[in-house]
Amino acid sequence: MRNIKLTIEYDGIKYAGWQVQCRKHRTIQQVLEKALREILRQRIKIIASGRTDAGVHALGQVANFKTGSDITLEKLRKALNAVLPADIAIIKTEEAYSDFHSRFSAKSKVYRYTIFNRPSRPVFSRDTVYFFVHPLNIELMQREARVLLGRHNFKSFQATAKKEKDAVRTIKSLKVSRSKDLIHIDIEADGFLYNMVRNIVGTLLEIGRGKLAAGSLKKILSAQDRKLAGPTAPALGLCLLKVQY
Amino acid sequence: MRNIKLTIEYDGIKYAGWQVQCRKHRTIQQVLEKALREILRQRIKIIASGRTDAGVHALGQVANFKTGSDITLEKLRKALNAVLPADIAIIKTEEAYSDFHSRFSAKSKVYRYTIFNRPSRPVFSRDTVYFFVHPLNIELMQREARVLLGRHNFKSFQATAKKEKDAVRTIKSLKVSRSKDLIHIDIEADGFLYNMVRNIVGTLLEIGRGKLAAGSLKKILSAQDRKLAGPTAPALGLCLLKVQY
Repeated sequence: MRNIKLTIEYDGIKYAGWQVQCRKHRTIQQVLEKALREILRQRIKIIASGRTDAGVHALGQVANFKTGSDITLEKLRKALNAVLPADIAIIKTEEAYSDFHSRFSAKSKVYRYTIFNRPSRPVFSRDTVYFFVHPLNIELMQREARVLLGRHNFKSFQATAKKEKDAVRTIKSLKVSRSKDLIHIDIEADGFLYNMVRNIVGTLLEIGRGKLAAGSLKKILSAQDRKLAGPTAPALGLCLLKVQY
Repeated sequence: MRNIKLTIEYDGIKYAGWQVQCRKHRTIQQVLEKALREILRQRIKIIASGRTDAGVHALGQVANFKTGSDITLEKLRKALNAVLPADIAIIKTEEAYSDFHSRFSAKSKVYRYTIFNRPSRPVFSRDTVYFFVHPLNIELMQREARVLLGRHNFKSFQATAKKEKDAVRTIKSLKVSRSKDLIHIDIEADGFLYNMVRNIVGTLLEIGRGKLAAGSLKKILSAQDRKLAGPTAPALGLCLLKVQY
């Protein structure tokens, strides 16, 4: 059996996420498995590096599947892109070693949150940026964010509805940068709790606009209490940039 | 009478351009004039720096209009953005001197053409990039493009259907740059002939992919013959970046 690794780009705005329990909603996984079944003429089960939520995008989601087919990698990529809807594309097909597992073999993931910050609403990329009208102090956001670096209990930034027993994760890097009206918040970690990036972003935005004082993030982190952190930033600004193996 | 200058951003994909003769098609100008009439409760005639074609975008189109209204600039900007469709936004409202004319006062314009270049089709910004699958030699394109700099007769790059008597224009700068899968061709000139940017881009793409030899652009330019140049690149990749006054 071959183990094939896919690198996938998708605009998540019209999907209920990578996978949902309920079969009623259209998911990325469903659409991909259907495309593979059509091309390979066999039932395929794909495994992703992790589920992305409804409305969340990806520039480098990774998934793998096993098959006995002898289709070439190039032919598979082209056939998938011909069959898939315009908002999903396969950017790479690779042969993986037999034990490779998109989720368990992952060392870290990089998420990017994009904020569009100016007085007038955006015209382009309306489904992939979060429009934030208030002026933001980027230097302060970057400085405050430093306390999140390293190994911590991120309970304060975990969705209250979906708690995991162990909320300890390691943030390897966190960068806040501005290029004209676009602000990118890039976070690399060994793993993410549910809504963790969106809760960190929501909190950083409160700091950046002056609603939370400098020094707040440190207190919020150590309190291990979700109620102290800022609101959850909307899904549409979030994008899974890449998965490191 | 006040003379008000607007800086406008628009996604042109659903419009028949800035203005067309035929009243049947929806144009940017039409939609803007309707919004102004709604807000100022008077008939307004706006003048743009130039017409953009069907499907062409703008990040910095400039237009002006005269009015006796005493609405504040900030209120006008907000009211317009509240009334205009999501694919048009006013990013600046300014008071201009009485003689200011968006078209005749312009010193130069900068157009950007965006090419998406990789084996797989794009998922994001599908309406604002031209997907080009063949590998491109960017250095060669940049080197070749240099012959276009300065004052020349650009007849070879003028649409055969809409010829102007005087095809002499001055290209002040022309830059071909690559950032990952995106290639930008930025051209600043004192004026542009009909389809001039798209014809230059179409020709540069033929050179970049090796269909036209190095040295071709110089020959094509001096021949003053549209038949020698490459095809017209599609409208959707073109964007009016800014107008200099």
